[in-house]
Amino acid sequence: MAVQTAESTTESAAPSVDLGPAAALSCRECGHRVPLGPVFACQECFGPLEIAYDFSAHDTEELRRRIEAGPANIWRYAPLLPVPADVATKPNINPGWTPLVRADNLARELGVTGGLYVKDDSGNPTHSFKDRVVAQALEAARAFGFTTLSCSSTGNLAGAVGAAAARAGLRSCVFIPHDLEQGKVVMAAVYGGELVGIEGSYDDVNRFCSELIGDPAGEGWGFVNVNLRPYYAEGSKTLAYEICEQLGWRLPDQIVVPIASGSQLTKIDKGLRELIELGLVEDRPYKIFGAQAEGCSPVSAAYKAGHDVVRPQKPKTIAKSLAIGNPADGPYVLDIARRTGGAVEDVTDEQIVEAIRLLARTEGIFAETAGGVTVGVTRKLIGSGALDPALTTVVLNTGDGLKTLDAVADTGLTATIRPNLDSFREAGLA
Amino acid sequence: MAVQTAESTTESAAPSVDLGPAAALSCRECGHRVPLGPVFACQECFGPLEIAYDFSAHDTEELRRRIEAGPANIWRYAPLLPVPADVATKPNINPGWTPLVRADNLARELGVTGGLYVKDDSGNPTHSFKDRVVAQALEAARAFGFTTLSCSSTGNLAGAVGAAAARAGLRSCVFIPHDLEQGKVVMAAVYGGELVGIEGSYDDVNRFCSELIGDPAGEGWGFVNVNLRPYYAEGSKTLAYEICEQLGWRLPDQIVVPIASGSQLTKIDKGLRELIELGLVEDRPYKIFGAQAEGCSPVSAAYKAGHDVVRPQKPKTIAKSLAIGNPADGPYVLDIARRTGGAVEDVTDEQIVEAIRLLARTEGIFAETAGGVTVGVTRKLIGSGALDPALTTVVLNTGDGLKTLDAVADTGLTATIRPNLDSFREAGLA
Ligand SMILES: [Zn+2]
Ligand SMILES: [Zn+2]
Repeated sequence: MAVQTAESTTESAAPSVDLGPAAALSCRECGHRVPLGPVFACQECFGPLEIAYDFSAHDTEELRRRIEAGPANIWRYAPLLPVPADVATKPNINPGWTPLVRADNLARELGVTGGLYVKDDSGNPTHSFKDRVVAQALEAARAFGFTTLSCSSTGNLAGAVGAAAARAGLRSCVFIPHDLEQGKVVMAAVYGGELVGIEGSYDDVNRFCSELIGDPAGEGWGFVNVNLRPYYAEGSKTLAYEICEQLGWRLPDQIVVPIASGSQLTKIDKGLRELIELGLVEDRPYKIFGAQAEGCSPVSAAYKAGHDVVRPQKPKTIAKSLAIGNPADGPYVLDIARRTGGAVEDVTDEQIVEAIRLLARTEGIFAETAGGVTVGVTRKLIGSGALDPALTTVVLNTGDGLKTLDAVADTGLTATIRPNLDSFREAGLA
Repeated sequence: MAVQTAESTTESAAPSVDLGPAAALSCRECGHRVPLGPVFACQECFGPLEIAYDFSAHDTEELRRRIEAGPANIWRYAPLLPVPADVATKPNINPGWTPLVRADNLARELGVTGGLYVKDDSGNPTHSFKDRVVAQALEAARAFGFTTLSCSSTGNLAGAVGAAAARAGLRSCVFIPHDLEQGKVVMAAVYGGELVGIEGSYDDVNRFCSELIGDPAGEGWGFVNVNLRPYYAEGSKTLAYEICEQLGWRLPDQIVVPIASGSQLTKIDKGLRELIELGLVEDRPYKIFGAQAEGCSPVSAAYKAGHDVVRPQKPKTIAKSLAIGNPADGPYVLDIARRTGGAVEDVTDEQIVEAIRLLARTEGIFAETAGGVTVGVTRKLIGSGALDPALTTVVLNTGDGLKTLDAVADTGLTATIRPNLDSFREAGLA
């Protein structure tokens, strides 16, 4: 794999990129700083680069007023994101500000007394949290002068990239395994960009993308989760911001987050810490819990074994959007769960389906399999005592049930009757 | 059909129902007024009953401030809806405040220069505008002490009712034709309520529901679009309110609305007139255009023939959510289109699919077939000169493409390659 380090591309970065408060890229491992650019790996240690901000200009109450007066999408937090100040005026898909649903019925079923909420990200433009991260990557792509937005994907990401590129007037080219189910192909292809099937596994797709980035043929291409990854990943911070603002500028006591690469969980933690540092919320303890499917539970397994490293697994679960067997941010997730007093847990496919039904039946929210994972894990963690039911708890639903209909395909009619009252009474429906 | 008139049920209405500014029910035909109750037909003339309001208490600027400080859903307009003032604190699905998307790419393709917007209702909790009307019906059901929320449906409505009842802790019982496609059954059944297949056509389903309402077996049952219809229908006003507020408290010059029963279009007109009367927007002319599928175009046919009455048709179109062959509000739609200087037009199934693709490709919005109808009709109306491209135009997308995937099922890969750069170059993708 041709890892593109900071050194090799610093020159290609625009000399005066305006990405708002983003000041530089900083290595998560060694702290080495480089200018903002389309790079993702540290030239010193090959560690992941992330955005370093300059937030020094902010007066807390002025910032709070500015956010509250902002648009009903993630751009209300523009002062805290790697985007230009006028981001809301540019064509983008404008995700976010999704409902934080007070889930009293679910709380009763689970025995939660401290207040239970579902952060329901299914209302985003393409119905998954991926719109948050792609919207960020799009702004970075614009800043760096890229003309093609790209990614490898097996699902949600493909649609999010296709939609965002369409709105922004960029070309899109998305790479997927050539034998993906027809429904998923349609959801990705409808936006009219290039949708290229790769003869090979998803790993082959990823390997090819890395090759393309290192080749002249990939010039002008922004791969949202590769060379734009430091910007892309920051989109997950907005989940933390929204949850706290929607709770009345208050930290939740406990938050249950699904784990795919682990990036979302680490960025939610980053977002919460930023709010504390900026004085926007009171500095109180919070616990972050990670949720996986048993069929792809490398982080959960490491957590339970007391390990600091994550041993890769071969995924086999209905929770396809979480099926990353070698999660890049796994070690960081372990660190955050342990530091905050949280935990990492997993549930079986059967428990995932049960949890999808439970959430739909109690709160009218039809979640993707990933939402079944977080709800199922919440139930399991309450059972084990790891999650305290007397504390305020937020559970993430990161996608929409319409995208994973197969998981509940055996749901059907509760009765069949003839169109008359006798038949109705016979069926015991009166 | 046992039509339930005001007289026969006035006694069963709660004596002091609190539905906010709703003062009474008033007959659209003869003006006869009756107290608020679960009735839908006038006892004098069998005309449709609708809500009469008392808005006299409002100071314009105070009202505007109150709305702007309200929640990011339809309850920000609680002072203008038949709901109690504390509605936002009750469990409901809280739809609305969906994006008004500035559609500059689509505008370029269609030659619109005056500003083109898509009001995208696919972001609602169950991904169609039906959440708006069901949320209203739910509040009425609560006010009247109903314990079962019900409807007949062939699609979007079933899911909206199931979800709303689940959140509110009511029983739900939804009636559908027994041979509905499995995907639609799953989307309706997942919320865990009763889902009853009726052996018969959709007409049989409706006839049965009317019978049930007139029977003791139907006591305590609120049929959202029958005995709760006057309340239910008001939910569509919120589309008008949101569009104007999102335009900066300004009327659009032109608005293109899909026609099923015609209720949505008439209520959007009602909402716009209320905003004018309340002084929230300047009193300027606006034009309302109705959009149908050619395969179910009774209102469009009547409009073109210069008729005042609508001749029923047998629907045959991919736009299932608009397939009402005998639209109850058809005559009102004709009146509004003519009075405002609008028009009613229809497009073929092929044009609907083309328009779905056009909207997805230009704006990253994946619309249900009903959205293809409005976008297709907009294009056709510009071509004919009926719609002025120099004026500010709003096009409604009332549902989500994920619900009508079949319409674009032939969308596929643009290329298939082997995982290497040579194959990539051969395919002409560089
Ligand atoms: Zn480093
Ligand atoms: Zn009357």
